[in-house]
Formats: sequence, structure tokens, C-alpha cells
Amino acid sequence: MDNRTSIFRLRIERLRDALQARQLDAVLVPSSDPHLSEYLPEHWQARQWFSGFTGSMGTLVVTTSEAAVFADSRYWTQAENELGGSGIELVRIPTGAGNQHVDWLKDHLPRGASLAVDGRVLGLAAAEALRRAMESAGIALRSDIDVIDAAWPERPALPTAPVYEHRPPHAATARSAKLGQVRQAMAERGASHHLVSTLDDLAWLFNLRGADVGFNPVFLAHALIDADSATLFVGAGKVDAALQQTLAADGVRIADYHTAAAALAALPAASTVLIDPKRVTLGLRQQIAAHASVVEAINPSTLLKSRKTSAEAAFIREAMAQDGAAMCEFYAWFEQALADPAQRGRITELTVDERLTAARAKRPGFVGPSFATIAGFGANGAMPHYRATEQSHAVIDVDVGTLLLIDSGGQYLGGTTDITRVWPIGSVSAEQKRDYTLVLKGTMALSRAKFPRGTLSPMLDTLARAPLWQEGLDFGHGTGHGVGYFLNVHEGPQSISRTIAEPQMAMEPGMITSVEPGVYRPGSWGVRIENLVLNVPAQTAEGSGFGEFLEFETLTMCPIDTRCIERSLLRADEVDWLNRYHQTVRERLSPLLDGDALAWLVERTAAI
Amino acid sequence: MDNRTSIFRLRIERLRDALQARQLDAVLVPSSDPHLSEYLPEHWQARQWFSGFTGSMGTLVVTTSEAAVFADSRYWTQAENELGGSGIELVRIPTGAGNQHVDWLKDHLPRGASLAVDGRVLGLAAAEALRRAMESAGIALRSDIDVIDAAWPERPALPTAPVYEHRPPHAATARSAKLGQVRQAMAERGASHHLVSTLDDLAWLFNLRGADVGFNPVFLAHALIDADSATLFVGAGKVDAALQQTLAADGVRIADYHTAAAALAALPAASTVLIDPKRVTLGLRQQIAAHASVVEAINPSTLLKSRKTSAEAAFIREAMAQDGAAMCEFYAWFEQALADPAQRGRITELTVDERLTAARAKRPGFVGPSFATIAGFGANGAMPHYRATEQSHAVIDVDVGTLLLIDSGGQYLGGTTDITRVWPIGSVSAEQKRDYTLVLKGTMALSRAKFPRGTLSPMLDTLARAPLWQEGLDFGHGTGHGVGYFLNVHEGPQSISRTIAEPQMAMEPGMITSVEPGVYRPGSWGVRIENLVLNVPAQTAEGSGFGEFLEFETLTMCPIDTRCIERSLLRADEVDWLNRYHQTVRERLSPLLDGDALAWLVERTAAI
Repeated sequence: MDNRTSIFRLRIERLRDALQARQLDAVLVPSSDPHLSEYLPEHWQARQWFSGFTGSMGTLVVTTSEAAVFADSRYWTQAENELGGSGIELVRIPTGAGNQHVDWLKDHLPRGASLAVDGRVLGLAAAEALRRAMESAGIALRSDIDVIDAAWPERPALPTAPVYEHRPPHAATARSAKLGQVRQAMAERGASHHLVSTLDDLAWLFNLRGADVGFNPVFLAHALIDADSATLFVGAGKVDAALQQTLAADGVRIADYHTAAAALAALPAASTVLIDPKRVTLGLRQQIAAHASVVEAINPSTLLKSRKTSAEAAFIREAMAQDGAAMCEFYAWFEQALADPAQRGRITELTVDERLTAARAKRPGFVGPSFATIAGFGANGAMPHYRATEQSHAVIDVDVGTLLLIDSGGQYLGGTTDITRVWPIGSVSAEQKRDYTLVLKGTMALSRAKFPRGTLSPMLDTLARAPLWQEGLDFGHGTGHGVGYFLNVHEGPQSISRTIAEPQMAMEPGMITSVEPGVYRPGSWGVRIENLVLNVPAQTAEGSGFGEFLEFETLTMCPIDTRCIERSLLRADEVDWLNRYHQTVRERLSPLLDGDALAWLVERTAAI
Repeated sequence: MDNRTSIFRLRIERLRDALQARQLDAVLVPSSDPHLSEYLPEHWQARQWFSGFTGSMGTLVVTTSEAAVFADSRYWTQAENELGGSGIELVRIPTGAGNQHVDWLKDHLPRGASLAVDGRVLGLAAAEALRRAMESAGIALRSDIDVIDAAWPERPALPTAPVYEHRPPHAATARSAKLGQVRQAMAERGASHHLVSTLDDLAWLFNLRGADVGFNPVFLAHALIDADSATLFVGAGKVDAALQQTLAADGVRIADYHTAAAALAALPAASTVLIDPKRVTLGLRQQIAAHASVVEAINPSTLLKSRKTSAEAAFIREAMAQDGAAMCEFYAWFEQALADPAQRGRITELTVDERLTAARAKRPGFVGPSFATIAGFGANGAMPHYRATEQSHAVIDVDVGTLLLIDSGGQYLGGTTDITRVWPIGSVSAEQKRDYTLVLKGTMALSRAKFPRGTLSPMLDTLARAPLWQEGLDFGHGTGHGVGYFLNVHEGPQSISRTIAEPQMAMEPGMITSVEPGVYRPGSWGVRIENLVLNVPAQTAEGSGFGEFLEFETLTMCPIDTRCIERSLLRADEVDWLNRYHQTVRERLSPLLDGDALAWLVERTAAI
């Protein structure tokens, strides 16, 4: 047992001590914060701190005798490694089956047991489902006791990064106009007030950005909006005086982050508060004054921000071209470096992240990476959420002959990028080419699809999987996620996945989604080919007799390696699509490149 | 205003009188019975009787000043015709949006109003949703007052057709074995009792059949099952003494249909009753003794019966061949009759039904049609649920030059068939050929799909639509429905449609589903090409490394007309599939045919 392992055993024991002291039988530690965010400030990374499992999603459950982490197939290999020796069991769950820990709890706790969970980080809808399930099993749910704090004296403080304005021209719609749209939706629901806890909704709505968590340019806040004004609850000192004045001009006042609960408790009589049960916590819901009515609906801002305006789309195309140019510069250097005997053994997965980020940083409008670069060489590419570390990373060795998967993205003032490409390192096998080509067929099939406006996004998932399914292949993650505008790289409401659809997931013009099928062979290699696409009105032979149709404009501009293609598996129309895509990439990126990078672009976009 | 119209105005007024006498403001008349069946005995056809709308689905709402029927796109043309002059508004709803009348009621009734609905025909899940919605709008829901009976003195009595046994070899699994499977599922849920109201579940479970409604060989009953015995509540005199004895040997006793409620009220203390909230009415739920516990889950029999055994599949293949042979006999006669000057003007849509049913009736094991034949000539084919009547039907005229759509099916002791084909009558246009070919591409794309076991059936819907969507075409109905075994032609839980998926809709081996995309041009023509397919383990290149895969075995054996095909729209692999299908059809049906019918088969299955 190494030191690292013993740390987590100790931490779990501390949780058990805290449980015993309070006569509780179990604690549920979700990957969650008061804003139900994907990326959490360290203060809220309790699941990671106690268990050692660093995946972006997963749930820890600790009873007096057992401990288990629930994670889906994206994380299985990683979780196995990280949980090894900790005494914590890994429970493998299907993607999207986020509630399996509930059944586990029902099976592992006796009737009459008490389960603690911090209500401040528990979504309202999830809390209701958990409460019902526990009730039926005779288990008491205690959401008002903080076991975590007691067992975690070293807990980091809340982040303090300053909040700044996202300005025109990139912030293409004025704050007052956005508030007007939200107020209209509130009026339609008969709501006098609206509580927003979702960080990217707040950033979008107020044209503000921050740096409280990695990669997502958001800041911790809540907002309470009424028909005339809005209060933004944000950490003291994070909004400077000048910005406060700017906001005040739009009727937005600043209050301390911790006073949101008090404001909800002090709502005037006859208030009707619009809240989104999936985007507000049980903790805040319980603070709403008893005399106020509550109307539940999806945050209007979640729907509004998903539909990018044409002005935003124009900036996004610009950002995509700059991002693609940065990729070309990196790859031109990278291929030369790999061929250079003097560099032998020096190029690692970490080098990819360093040089790629450096290439992006030279591009106008670049703010930072949009997520931690995944550079997976060979077997590491088979872990969809792999991340190389100083302690553990692979040297890129051309003599090995395998695939290198690179999934990376940037935040630009005019958009957010996310792209995955796979490159041959040395010679690649026929089986690798086959996997690569079948994945490419999936990417193309979905990218070329036309579909009625309003189609529920999960219904499109099958189109990307069908070419893989036909050969008995599949992948454990979703096919695509929504993407923000200089905001979160994972953004709702739409997602192209096997998730059970909801009415909010209707595809609407202006939405941006990733298309990223894959194939993973644990211990061997992984393939994923990812572009971002924009929902635009479709040109169809039929005209409008059968209603409005949408199609995808592929936004991502970067060569897709053709050396890995098994051409006999492609149909003529697929070859056409690929050649036309490469022609567009060449035309758009050429003006942004010169020298070796330009030569690399021309070579890698040659028609096949 | 014709007589027919004035009848429905009068009937609606009778409903209003009944409302006024009870100080109620509105009545909701669903298309429903105490068994939540699709086909209703006349006794329960209140919506049809009061409104005149004869579609198989639709909801009538009558207030003191308004009346409206809610129907989806399959019924719009039909409902327009049938409701014309009745004073009843047609509210057009999207397919699957079965709850739009709830919003309408909230908009059209004031707070404080009272809405009547017969709780005996209201599903429990639907009742809960309705109650919540009405509560939020301040409308009182009265499910205990029967307005219908009062306004309908001519109401027909309940049906009295005898119940008979479905015997071996066609009933391939013994009653006792099926009861054992259900009891095992009850035990897994901790249930001591299980109430079943679903007619096809009962028919399957007890290996019994009846003739209480058209087309579906079921009988009105409820059953209460415990660990050792079962009570079947069925109309007096419908089960004869011999059959009662046979049932008694398996621990099944007979009680009067009307005593189910009393039996639920008399459940012993400490009972736990398993009920399916989608398959039990509010009326019966409210009868369950207060001291009994209730556990809600899908009827185990619904899942069990959807997975046909290999013995059943063998009989189904036989029935499909006989059914296809009957089709060939009919078509051989039909094409000759159309070409015969002496028959000119005598062949109508009604003739199709008569002759096709007569051809089926000669086949071994035939019991009756599985639904009312749809024979739609030209524009009539554009109404997916069209039915020719004595009063209104088209003459099949070869000089018109258009398409004839025939959707029909049979009940056989060894299976249930459902097939749609489209035939050219005279010369067909390039646009008709294009529609036909694109629909055929959809049928083939889905029929050839492979997919992981457990895929939610709605996720497959897109595969059939994609070739149509690509050209801006679509259709308003689902792509496929489950099909019973000598039982209902529409059977759950799976359905291939844009319905929001539920976990129960997982595709499992043995399920039978229709594949029936279409294109409808109102006023011009309609195309639908339908086969039934069986879920079987897939042969894939990959083996089992990525889990278990399923594929479809096409069960329906009948030529697909090739004269309507625009060959340039088919890929080589599609032509191959069609030619291989026709080769199989020829091989399977040849031994069952001779003379003109055999010659017709050979001609219509020629490779293209």
C-alpha cells in the first residue's frame, strides 16, 4: 500500500467518524456544487478529495462498513487505477444511469437507517427522486447536516477571481435585451421573480465572465430577477466599482454571495418565483418564503443562450478558423519534431498540450483552453477522459506504430472550440484503419443529416452509431453535447446521446453541438473524430410542404487525417463530402498560415 | 345540414343537459374502457357516439358552450369530414401529444369549474397527471359521476362472445408456466397479489381467446393473481363448464366480471398488490382495500408476452408464408380483373377488402382480419387510417394512373400479420416513383439495422426517416409498433416512433415490430411500405467484444412492387437487399401457390 492509497483510506475513516458522531449510517457525496455545475471549485470537490477518483463525474457513497464510487464507462479504467488499494469499490454504471447509487443504497442500508447528503449541492429534481426512493425503503434522508465539512478541516476557501465584462462586438446582444427576453418568459409563466443559480446562464445573461473554475469562464453567483431589476449575489470584491456602475445602469445591483438565501426568505407576499428544478438546489428551494408561489420550468436563459445569434455565429466561424490554424501550426511542428532524431524520446503526451496551447495562445481573441487537453498515445487513447500527468504520461514513439488521439479546445472572446483528431504515429495496422474509417463514417453520417426542426436531439444519436453498430462496434459515451459561446464547452439543453429525451431537447436553429463518435479498445487504442456543428435551415429538394427542416453547418476547420483511412470502406458520396470539407478547410485556413504550417495544411487537405 | 350532422349536435346537447343537471361545467370523454384497450366494445365507444368521429384515437371535450375533438395528424382529414357541421371543433395535435386537451381545458374553463370524467375508464397514471393539472388551474375533477350513461339511454350492453382456449401446439407455452413466470416477477417486487386488467395480457397469460371487440381476439376480464391461485373476472356464461374445469386444474377460478372491485376491497390485511399505473384504471385503484400496500410496475405479462419464444417464432414464419400466399392469390386475380373490360367500374376499394379477406380465409389457421383493411386509391391513400365504406369509396380506375395503398392483416392461430404494399394502377408519375423509392429506402434502412440489445426502440425511428428527411419529406405517424402472437396487432411495450422513450422500451430478442415509413400528399396519393420484423441475435464482424447485438429478421413474405421504383435512387447494396428478399419470398411462397398466383409471384419477385 503506497502513501497515496493510505490517504484515502484515512479520509473515508474520517467520514465514518463524522457519521458516527451524528448517529448517521451513510453519506452520499455527489459531484456537485450549489450551482449544479460540471466543473467544481476545489471547495466543492469533496468526492474527489475523499475518494481519490478525479473523473469529472461520479458519486461517492460511504456507509459505516462500505464505500463505493459510481462511474460510467468513460471512467472505468481511470477509476480502477485511482481507486486501487483505497478500499473503495468501483460500481460500473451505464452512461446516463445517474441514479444507480440510489438502488445500491436501498440494497445496502437497512430500514430505519439515516442517509446524509448536503442539501446545498443537491438539485431539486434529484432531491425529490432521492427522497421518494429512500422513503419507499424506509431510509431517512437528512439534507441539513454537513458531514463533509466536519471530516475535511483542510477544505479550501471559495475562489476569488475578479468578474469582468464580455464586451461588444463579441458580446453581440446587450444585457438589457437579454434581461428583456427572460422577463418576457417570466411573464408568460406568470412569475414575478426568477432565481438563477446556473453559472453559464448568469454569465450569458449579464454579459459577464470570470475565472472561478478551470476552463469555464464563469463566476460563482446567484441572481434574483424581477420585472424591473435584478440582484446578482456574488463574492465580495469580485465586481469592481466601475463594473458595478455599468451593471446599475441596466438595473442590476450587486449583493454578497451568501445573502441569496436571505433574499429568497424575504420575498414579498404574492410573489411567484420561477425556478428550474434541475438547476436549483434543494437548499435554496427550501429558503423561498412560504407565502410565495413557485412555478417550475426550465430556465428561460438556458433555452435562449443555446440558440446562437447570427452575429455570434459569425464570430464563432472566425474563432474556428483561428483555432484550426493553431492546430495546423502545432501539427506542422509536431510531425517535424517526431521525425527529428535529436528530439527522440523527448516528445510526450504532455508536449502535445504545451505546444498546442502555445499555438492557440498566439491567435487573436484566445483566452485559455476550454478543457484539459486529452492527448492519448496508443492504449491511453482508449480512455475517453484520459489526462496525461507529470507522474504518468507516454512518450510519443514513432517506432511503436499506433494512433495518437488529441481532444482539445480553446476559449476565444468570439466562441468556444472543441475538436478531436486522431493521427498515425509510425505505421498503423489494418484493424486501426478499419476502426478509424468506421468512426469517420459515423461522424460524416450525422454531420450530413437533415431533420425536422424540433426533432429531439437524442433521436439523432443513432445516425452516428449506425455505421459502427453494423459491424458490432459501439462506444460508451454520448455522440454530442451542446457548446457555449465563450462559455462552457458542455452546455444544454440539447445533447445527442442515448439519454432518454425530454421536450426541451428539441433541435432549434442556432444551436451548436459536437459530433464525436468513437471506438475504444482498452489496452490497445482509441479513435474519436469530433467536429462542432451549427443548426441552420436546411436546403431540401421538397421545399416547405413537409415543415421546416434543419441541417448542420460544420464549424470546426481542421484536416481529418486521410492516411488512416481504409478507402474501400467509404462510399463515393462519403469521399465527396470529405474532399469538399478539406477544400473548405484549405480555403479558410490558408490566409491565416504561412511557411511549414501552410505546406502542412495543403498536404493534409489533399483530395483522396 | 344533413341528418347525420344534426344527430351529433343533439347528442352534444344531451351531454350539456346532463352536465347542467349535475352542476358540472365540462365533461372529458376519452377513447377508453376499463381495460385501457385500443379497440373498444360499443358500450365504451362514447366519444364516437357523441361526436361522430370514428377514428381509433381521439378525445372529446364538451363544455357548456364549446365542444372539441383532439386528434393527431393520422386523423385530420377524416375528422374534418366527420365533424363537419357538428359544431365540434377539431383540435389538431402532434402525434404522441396525448395531453393537449389538458391545456385546452385549463385555458377554456374558469377557476372553480368542475370537470367530469368517468374514473372507470381513466388510466391511473393519466388520472394523476390530469388531477395535478386541474388542481393547478383550480378546476375540480369529478371522476365518480357518470354523465355519459345519463345522456346515452341507447347505450349498448356489454359483449357476450364465448371465451375459448388457445391450444397447443400454437399455444406453445403452458398456462401454468406463464403463471409461474408472472409469480416470480411478483415475488421479486415483494407483491402478494397482482391485478391485471389488460385484455391481451390476460389472453396471453391464460391461453384464452375471445371475440368481444373487433379484430383483437380478446375478451373483457380482469384477473387477480396470488402466489397459488388466480381469479378471472369474466362475464357470466362466457366460459363453459369444460373450460372452467381446465382452468381449475391450473388453480384459476372464474368469478363474475363485475365482482373485481369487491375482490380488491376484500383483500386480506398485509397484502401487497402489484399494479401497472398505465394499465389499471383510477376506478379500480380506488377499490383496493386501504390496509393493502401497492407497488407500481409494468405488468410482468406485458414484458413476457412481447418476447416471442422460438416455438412461437416458428409458427409465425408459417403464418407469414400463408398470409403472403393469400396476398399473391388476391393480386393475381386483382391485376387480371383490372385488365378485364367486362369488370370495368366494378372493382372498388371495397372489393379489395372482400377478395383479400376471402383469399386469407382459405389459408390454414386463419381466424379473421387483424384490423379493418385500408385500401386507399389515389388521394384516399394519403389518409393513413382511411377506411372505405358502402357510402363512400373509390372505384379503382386504371385510366386514372395513380397508386393504390393496401394495408391489411390476418389473425392466425399461429400469429398475427400486418402488411402494407403500394401498387401502380395504370401509369405512375416520376414524382410518385420518387416518393415510393424514398419510402422503400427507409423500410430497407431500418430492416437492415443492427443495434445493441437493450437499445430503446424509439432510438431506431430515425433510421427509417433519414432517407426521407434528406429530401425534406417526413410522415406524421410512428415508424413501427409491436405486434402480438394471435393477439393484438398493436402491442407494447416497444414502439419505433418519436415518442419519448421509456426504459421498458428496450429492444429484446423475440420482439416483433412493424417497419412502416410512409409519405402522404393530401389530395394526391400516399405511400407506405410495411413489413413485420423479429428481433434476433445479430451476426457482426466484431464478435462479442462490444456486447450483445440484435438485428431484424424480416417475417413478412410478399413481393414489394418493383414497377414503382426509381432505380437511380437506390444504391447497389439496397438493390442487393431487395433482390435477396424477393428470392426468399419466391422460395417460401412457391410451394403454397399454383397457376396464375404462382406465375404472378414469379413475375413480381424478378430481380431488378
